Amino acid sequence: MSPFVEQFFEDYEIGTARLTTGRTLTETDVVLHAGQTGDFYPHHMDREWCATQPFGRRLAHGTLVLSVAVGMTAGMVNPRAMSYGYDRIRFVRPVFIDDTITVTAEIVAKHDHPKAPERLGRVDERLSVENQDGEIVLVLVHLYVVDKRVAGGADLSTRRDGASEEQP
Amino acid sequence: MSPFVEQFFEDYEIGTARLTTGRTLTETDVVLHAGQTGDFYPHHMDREWCATQPFGRRLAHGTLVLSVAVGMTAGMVNPRAMSYGYDRIRFVRPVFIDDTITVTAEIVAKHDHPKAPERLGRVDERLSVENQDGEIVLVLVHLYVVDKRVAGGADLSTRRDGASEEQP
Amino acid sequence: MSPFVEQFFEDYEIGTARLTTGRTLTETDVVLHAGQTGDFYPHHMDREWCATQPFGRRLAHGTLVLSVAVGMTAGMVNPRAMSYGYDRIRFVRPVFIDDTITVTAEIVAKHDHPKAPERLGRVDERLSVENQDGEIVLVLVHLYVVDKRVAGGADLSTRRDGASEEQP
Amino acid sequence: MSPFVEQFFEDYEIGTARLTTGRTLTETDVVLHAGQTGDFYPHHMDREWCATQPFGRRLAHGTLVLSVAVGMTAGMVNPRAMSYGYDRIRFVRPVFIDDTITVTAEIVAKHDHPKAPERLGRVDERLSVENQDGEIVLVLVHLYVVDKRVAGGADLSTRRDGASEEQP
Amino acid sequence: MSPFVEQFFEDYEIGTARLTTGRTLTETDVVLHAGQTGDFYPHHMDREWCATQPFGRRLAHGTLVLSVAVGMTAGMVNPRAMSYGYDRIRFVRPVFIDDTITVTAEIVAKHDHPKAPERLGRVDERLSVENQDGEIVLVLVHLYVVDKRVAGGADLSTRRDGASEEQP
Amino acid sequence: MSPFVEQFFEDYEIGTARLTTGRTLTETDVVLHAGQTGDFYPHHMDREWCATQPFGRRLAHGTLVLSVAVGMTAGMVNPRAMSYGYDRIRFVRPVFIDDTITVTAEIVAKHDHPKAPERLGRVDERLSVENQDGEIVLVLVHLYVVDKRVAGGADLSTRRDGASEEQP
Repeated sequence: MSPFVEQFFEDYEIGTARLTTGRTLTETDVVLHAGQTGDFYPHHMDREWCATQPFGRRLAHGTLVLSVAVGMTAGMVNPRAMSYGYDRIRFVRPVFIDDTITVTAEIVAKHDHPKAPERLGRVDERLSVENQDGEIVLVLVHLYVVDKRVAGGADLSTRRDGASEEQP
Repeated sequence: MSPFVEQFFEDYEIGTARLTTGRTLTETDVVLHAGQTGDFYPHHMDREWCATQPFGRRLAHGTLVLSVAVGMTAGMVNPRAMSYGYDRIRFVRPVFIDDTITVTAEIVAKHDHPKAPERLGRVDERLSVENQDGEIVLVLVHLYVVDKRVAGGADLSTRRDGASEEQP
Repeated sequence: MSPFVEQFFEDYEIGTARLTTGRTLTETDVVLHAGQTGDFYPHHMDREWCATQPFGRRLAHGTLVLSVAVGMTAGMVNPRAMSYGYDRIRFVRPVFIDDTITVTAEIVAKHDHPKAPERLGRVDERLSVENQDGEIVLVLVHLYVVDKRVAGGADLSTRRDGASEEQP
Repeated sequence: MSPFVEQFFEDYEIGTARLTTGRTLTETDVVLHAGQTGDFYPHHMDREWCATQPFGRRLAHGTLVLSVAVGMTAGMVNPRAMSYGYDRIRFVRPVFIDDTITVTAEIVAKHDHPKAPERLGRVDERLSVENQDGEIVLVLVHLYVVDKRVAGGADLSTRRDGASEEQP
Repeated sequence: MSPFVEQFFEDYEIGTARLTTGRTLTETDVVLHAGQTGDFYPHHMDREWCATQPFGRRLAHGTLVLSVAVGMTAGMVNPRAMSYGYDRIRFVRPVFIDDTITVTAEIVAKHDHPKAPERLGRVDERLSVENQDGEIVLVLVHLYVVDKRVAGGADLSTRRDGASEEQP
Repeated sequence: MSPFVEQFFEDYEIGTARLTTGRTLTETDVVLHAGQTGDFYPHHMDREWCATQPFGRRLAHGTLVLSVAVGMTAGMVNPRAMSYGYDRIRFVRPVFIDDTITVTAEIVAKHDHPKAPERLGRVDERLSVENQDGEIVLVLVHLYVVDKRVAGGADLSTRRDGASEEQP
């Protein structure tokens, strides 16, 4: 009856895919995201100016589309995994106010973690975000660090600091 | 007196850096971000459970730190540039509620755009996000597509679709 | 000149009714309520999917209509009354984004409180929520515990715990 | 791979229970709920006045605890069920800012729907909301109208209007 | 039973005063106001920097204190009055996060409206905003245009444009 | 590379003007402002009632237009200046949901500060807010207290209290 579902590195299978329900990115979402980030660029906030531009309408912020898309893939809580980063985020097409997005998430790769290969792995999940016309608007790879089963009792708090090969 | 500042590809110089003011990531930011994204994981929302975990306190969402950090670098409006994507986003250290972040943004690379090298370039800006203790918590590279001066009148709306080499 | 208006159990009269001003339930309200509750069901958030359903449009959450309707009846502050619960909440008709609701609140019953009949009473206020077409969309009974005049100095903090006949 | 999970009346079993993760009801939640409902009573908004009262601290709105608790039980999307109302909502104990709640939801009753017993049923789910000290703070029964299997293609849009026995 | 209370120019009396309940200006209010206005100055948003400044703590935005104080005086709806402007707004003392304000509103002057003295008047209401220590933090005069009784059916929509003596 | 730009009293020049980008005042802004201030008057919140009024549509709150307009003029952080108050705020024309405003800010006056003329000055900046049709909707004068160069190290925290000639 627990809301937590333990899933170890060994339990992830390449090719497993999930599809989310849809979500309309409303004017409210854009205004709230401007308010959260401080990005009040006229591309998002000024419908008069947008009407004079080639794209014609107000655009959703890239970080809004990204944040919502990632959030849409949050499901059961796996205490064995932690988000580590993203690779190759590409805003392939613009997303406008009132577009509706859905996300397909697919496990595309599994690696040993270079710093602790015996107890940690990295799982890569590819997110493809489509609009209501079936066009891909955003792609990215979401990186997770996941406990290996043998290391079930590992201290999660040390993981990120151990990832120093990623530091500048 | 215009709020727009035109800056062409040729005007960006590798090594130019900017430093933002600081911003505290409050409980409010985390609650609003959960509300925007739908990610109500106990890592962010349940202070009792967090107190039982190795990290001990509520964590800011990765997409919150990312969105705010990118927003903090939004300054003058350059109608010649458009955000294109991000590379190698790494959450190097956790960010907790009430941590204060500042961002350093530095131009680190310039390339011709592979699909339209005569009229478009790509400018890479590296963001390094530090907490109040001077520790780096997030790094990423922000990718811009920027008009070349010779192509001053180009239709911006065609840019993203032209970026098809990035598509899956 | 005080904003508090003391009203004891004896001061409530069955049949007294109040009518609120109207309030439009906007897309913003629905998005904010999803964000507050974590309920991102497509019934509320996905206008493409809603268009394929019999109801055709995005629905306001039941708890949104309820919360706003109850809030619309909050007027002067009566330090002698405290909200105790609700009975028979029924979502009689759907409420869509951009519907405008008004609330009629009528005192419909008064009882002694079973656990402390000499110093506390229960006042039942029926709320009827109508949309802009005069159709009832929600009904409920709001239950208050109210001091009796003889017990003017009672300690309010003990009331809820004293209501143990309601506990499971 | 669909996010929708069809569950008919016949599929619900009395005694089945779910437990949610926890959620801290923050100052932010209270301020946002005041803003959504218009209830700015000093019980929720004025910490100086609250400090002079028996309960001593700012209280979460009843409708906030209710809305969040119901939202916390929203999981997979069942297109065969629709929320119909609530019975016997009781605020058993006060909830203060920074209290953390968890919800247990248990199927407690199944009935034929009186207006359309051959194609619709009513499923009652009891919600018990506990705080971090294991004390019950809110109980309620959530009422769903659910398609029977034989009536799989029924038009959901007619349901609420058909529930006229609930009208005043 | 109407929520509207008609009050004509002749009904306002100099010296009439109202006192509001209190409201704590929370961190949430400041973060939301930054998000609404786009003012993310470190005076409001960066608690590390504030700690190095003479005032030591994060300040509420002036426009936040003003907006909330004016909103706290909104009571019954008078369809005969419309807000016209403010005079001599002075932020007398800083307001910090977690300060609690109350507002005293007093009618201090009545004039004929210069452009339509036979049918419109101007009513001046002085607002004094105090913090929890009884110190005045903000004063202003709120200006209303109010129908005279003789002109009960006047078209409100023409009022503001008629106020051209105030234009630059 | 600092985000702070020191500007002393002597550096401000009468006649210097700035123009902001535009911002559309959305339904979201109005709903959020009602939520922040507690002003749920039907002029802003009830589109059915508004449709029966001479102005015909929902109006933005005066304090919303004011707060956003002032926020739109917030640019570089000048640690030598602090907002002191506003004079002659006039809502010249109504602002409706979906109107787009731009702000022109012009330095119009400089004075010695009466309480500390040797070390402080007052700078007056006039804000003119236009809608998408080029009509002025709001004017005001924003008052700043600014350090004089000779007093570069003055303690900013004492300024507001020193402004006692403004107190009631």
